[in-house]
Amino acid sequence: MNYQAVLEEIQSEIQEQLKKGKVANYIPALANVKKNDFAMSIVDLESNEYHVGKSNKEFSIQSISKVFTFTLALQKYSRELYKRVGHEPSGNAFNSLIQLEYENGIPRNPFINAGAIVTTDSLLSLYKESTFDYILHFIQNAANDKTITFDEEVYTSELKHGYRNQALVNMMKSFNNIDNLTSSVMQTYFKQCSIKMSTAQLAKSMLFLANHGVNPLTNEVLINESKAKRINSIMLTCGHYDASGDFAYKVGLPGKSGVGGGIVAIVPKKMAICVYSPRLNKYGNSLAGTKALELFTTKTGLSIF
Amino acid sequence: MNYQAVLEEIQSEIQEQLKKGKVANYIPALANVKKNDFAMSIVDLESNEYHVGKSNKEFSIQSISKVFTFTLALQKYSRELYKRVGHEPSGNAFNSLIQLEYENGIPRNPFINAGAIVTTDSLLSLYKESTFDYILHFIQNAANDKTITFDEEVYTSELKHGYRNQALVNMMKSFNNIDNLTSSVMQTYFKQCSIKMSTAQLAKSMLFLANHGVNPLTNEVLINESKAKRINSIMLTCGHYDASGDFAYKVGLPGKSGVGGGIVAIVPKKMAICVYSPRLNKYGNSLAGTKALELFTTKTGLSIF
Amino acid sequence: MNYQAVLEEIQSEIQEQLKKGKVANYIPALANVKKNDFAMSIVDLESNEYHVGKSNKEFSIQSISKVFTFTLALQKYSRELYKRVGHEPSGNAFNSLIQLEYENGIPRNPFINAGAIVTTDSLLSLYKESTFDYILHFIQNAANDKTITFDEEVYTSELKHGYRNQALVNMMKSFNNIDNLTSSVMQTYFKQCSIKMSTAQLAKSMLFLANHGVNPLTNEVLINESKAKRINSIMLTCGHYDASGDFAYKVGLPGKSGVGGGIVAIVPKKMAICVYSPRLNKYGNSLAGTKALELFTTKTGLSIF
Amino acid sequence: MNYQAVLEEIQSEIQEQLKKGKVANYIPALANVKKNDFAMSIVDLESNEYHVGKSNKEFSIQSISKVFTFTLALQKYSRELYKRVGHEPSGNAFNSLIQLEYENGIPRNPFINAGAIVTTDSLLSLYKESTFDYILHFIQNAANDKTITFDEEVYTSELKHGYRNQALVNMMKSFNNIDNLTSSVMQTYFKQCSIKMSTAQLAKSMLFLANHGVNPLTNEVLINESKAKRINSIMLTCGHYDASGDFAYKVGLPGKSGVGGGIVAIVPKKMAICVYSPRLNKYGNSLAGTKALELFTTKTGLSIF
Repeated sequence: MNYQAVLEEIQSEIQEQLKKGKVANYIPALANVKKNDFAMSIVDLESNEYHVGKSNKEFSIQSISKVFTFTLALQKYSRELYKRVGHEPSGNAFNSLIQLEYENGIPRNPFINAGAIVTTDSLLSLYKESTFDYILHFIQNAANDKTITFDEEVYTSELKHGYRNQALVNMMKSFNNIDNLTSSVMQTYFKQCSIKMSTAQLAKSMLFLANHGVNPLTNEVLINESKAKRINSIMLTCGHYDASGDFAYKVGLPGKSGVGGGIVAIVPKKMAICVYSPRLNKYGNSLAGTKALELFTTKTGLSIF
Repeated sequence: MNYQAVLEEIQSEIQEQLKKGKVANYIPALANVKKNDFAMSIVDLESNEYHVGKSNKEFSIQSISKVFTFTLALQKYSRELYKRVGHEPSGNAFNSLIQLEYENGIPRNPFINAGAIVTTDSLLSLYKESTFDYILHFIQNAANDKTITFDEEVYTSELKHGYRNQALVNMMKSFNNIDNLTSSVMQTYFKQCSIKMSTAQLAKSMLFLANHGVNPLTNEVLINESKAKRINSIMLTCGHYDASGDFAYKVGLPGKSGVGGGIVAIVPKKMAICVYSPRLNKYGNSLAGTKALELFTTKTGLSIF
Repeated sequence: MNYQAVLEEIQSEIQEQLKKGKVANYIPALANVKKNDFAMSIVDLESNEYHVGKSNKEFSIQSISKVFTFTLALQKYSRELYKRVGHEPSGNAFNSLIQLEYENGIPRNPFINAGAIVTTDSLLSLYKESTFDYILHFIQNAANDKTITFDEEVYTSELKHGYRNQALVNMMKSFNNIDNLTSSVMQTYFKQCSIKMSTAQLAKSMLFLANHGVNPLTNEVLINESKAKRINSIMLTCGHYDASGDFAYKVGLPGKSGVGGGIVAIVPKKMAICVYSPRLNKYGNSLAGTKALELFTTKTGLSIF
Repeated sequence: MNYQAVLEEIQSEIQEQLKKGKVANYIPALANVKKNDFAMSIVDLESNEYHVGKSNKEFSIQSISKVFTFTLALQKYSRELYKRVGHEPSGNAFNSLIQLEYENGIPRNPFINAGAIVTTDSLLSLYKESTFDYILHFIQNAANDKTITFDEEVYTSELKHGYRNQALVNMMKSFNNIDNLTSSVMQTYFKQCSIKMSTAQLAKSMLFLANHGVNPLTNEVLINESKAKRINSIMLTCGHYDASGDFAYKVGLPGKSGVGGGIVAIVPKKMAICVYSPRLNKYGNSLAGTKALELFTTKTGLSIF
């Protein structure tokens, strides 16, 4: 199939969607983007690349970083990790804090904020002050690109305004599900969210999940086959907050979104796809990005269902 | 791959699991089964069949019936149906009634009780007093077997003890999300739950979902390709109540369970599988059945991820 | 103090309030009242009476009936009753059904619908088919007026439209907190809600709660002193649904409202007061009625605080 | 009535109760008390005092401090305060955080932790770094005793372990319902909770609430009559967390408890009572203290109902 042509068709068809939705504005640093930007990249297991739009422009990966930290934590702790964070959909946006209270500080899954904070805490216990470097190094390695770094301004801004996340970490600490200082956990967490990458870099960095855990760019085993599949399954059921079911329904691929406007999706045994468009739908996922991925599976028949 | 050998291996490996878990006992008619029974059937798109255990013994399909009624309603109403029932995981067992109140009587998805009751109500508006016959006929047709019928004793028992479901239908009626008499809706709903089938029959009856909507046994189009995929996606994200994420994680296939002890799973483009074992885990899904399907994807690599 | 003058002042001062709020319209029979009607009656322990407005016009007492059935049930069961219904504020309107699920079918207090339904069920177990007559007789006795009866049209209308209450009774039945047939319970419950009384009759009928359980009109002991005080305390903390705290704050008297537009309030050791005005505030309590009682305690200093 | 004799009777009758319940142990400094201690003090409007037990022994007043800060905030802000904190019972322990999320960071009432934190924040906006001194001075003034101070060890301990309260303040900050630095708010809040007083001092300090806002010891007007009554009403409906209804039911007086083991109750127009016993019931209120107050109103007939 001519994927370049497919991408160009999609780009053309979503022009109207690019004008809809709202850019995340809870911190000034995120609000300050070009609202109608668009980029989409495909990298397949044979290292073929296809791009449209500003595919080398970096943006804040935000919650997409949760996939990397979860991969690292699952690799180190295996099922022990599930004593501290589950792998079920959370059901509802408002539930993040409510369920946390009912369920004694054990977050539903690693892709909601509370779950990702626990995941980061579990890494902090192992890697101490070098935890963020460890995470960043993993991502650079996965993308085979040492230039990837984080955005200082976004980081500082998150740290200053992240009261909701501060509430989550303190709540979990009160349930003894945070082992390190809440301040250290939040610094590391906000720093990982502030990493900036392009669609080209993100597509490459996730390729191991389409390739049973092996990075096809370097042949390095990043995680074993069984765990790679399971990460995909959690992306499918939990990767888009309250709209996870809808994403599975319309797109039919494991995927993870970030409020920065990026979405990564995996076609198992074939490719990784990344799309960027900063305007969000009401669930906090890229509006045009979701539509672009829906068009992609419709045109290619590559849904896993 | 030698699927018969795989089934026999699974049967041998799950013997210990067959002794664990509890049979559903909320109605006497369901409690009255042989607790350690086991059966597993595979039917592929070329009509090859593989069976182990009591694969011709009928059991109560219960919530597996929700797949059939949702298929019929989606076929008739298309996306209009989603005004009355969503397609998101509900998050939590206790949520069925709680979310219903918060979300104004619109159930989260068609595979929780409230959602299936709305689905049945939507069919009642079209087919009136012949609704149940219409549903049964569809199932007979899908399984290519006119002998399939329902269990009068289970039906009567459900009707007598189903106070929780009566609460659900009245709550939705108070939100104007039930169009017919609550008594008619509940009669039809309990009757569809009381349909009895064997693993062999169930595997055949779901084959259309593995075959882009076409029944390979009869070449009849039961639903279009796009909708077939979407039904699979909802089975993956919502098919096992609170354990949907766990089933996706461990088994990696779209599936639907019933408290009667059956589970049906779909391998897209390849086959349908049905397993039966009446003892349930704490989420109300067949304990040994879930394990058997996990062994199946581990041994065959047929997970969709 | 010249209570007649106080009532006349209040009547004059609340004229603007009488035009605000909405009449209950969930059943046609209730919507069909004169919207701007007003009446207020005081009866003291020496049988002095003071009235303004249409104090002999009957209206549907609705939830005010809960005070009578709770009095009867407490008299018969004493603290045994609290195994089936609590005496804590429920916190929130939406909670009625949600808390019921969390708290295993035990309603928070006898003045929310679920709690009153359990109370009625407890009476049904004792008085069988004569339960309603028993309740009505108690009220006639308390008011010293044999003409009091119920409104057939309101009763029929409630029975036909009360889906939310049907949901409550079925939910509690599923938790084994309803002993009788749900249909019998609901018939009796809706009938008691359909009793019609005037402000003059209601003020008299509640006088025993201001007089340590003794009806000063007949010297009959309706309940013992300790229980009479406790009924008052529950009226104060739970008598106005989600606005119970606000009523205690502004009025400072034990009271119970009904969606028919009536409110009864007790001044311990002094008097009973009833006010009627059918337009309701957003909490379902008479808007002008609440204001009238607030003016009453401000003018007389008779708040219990 | 011979109140000294009543207190002695109570002391004798609750000896068995003194052995039940558990001392608060979430911070070491609170756990370190004599478990079976008991004290009870009455001060009436004529300055008569009656005491039993260790009525001069200081203990941590904890949540009783909320009455003082609410009095100060209500005095300064009047009904403007209710834009930031309500006056309704919260319904349930678990609700504190859940309702806070549903209700956009506006706590239900000033006597749950979230509400008291907002109250303290409102004072911080007025009195800046001298806020705690202002609060302490008010209490010293009300008790007519300049020796009252706070416990440094309890304060430090609270500050170190108060993760749940840190979660609350951050959550409210995320809803813009906290104006000052969360660290300043929590320091002031924990300091006010660490104030230590005896039952004799506490009874005196609350006397103004029994005397329409005027301190009878000094004739100083601490708050106006209308507000004094309203503070009493909120103590009645919200003063004992989830057991507020039960306290109203059994004791029948406005009251406020603290996890340090103290309870203060008001008999309007007559007296203030304070009881101390550090073992708590499951709702976090002094077990023997609650029983002692129940005996008091039973013996004296001084319930407000």
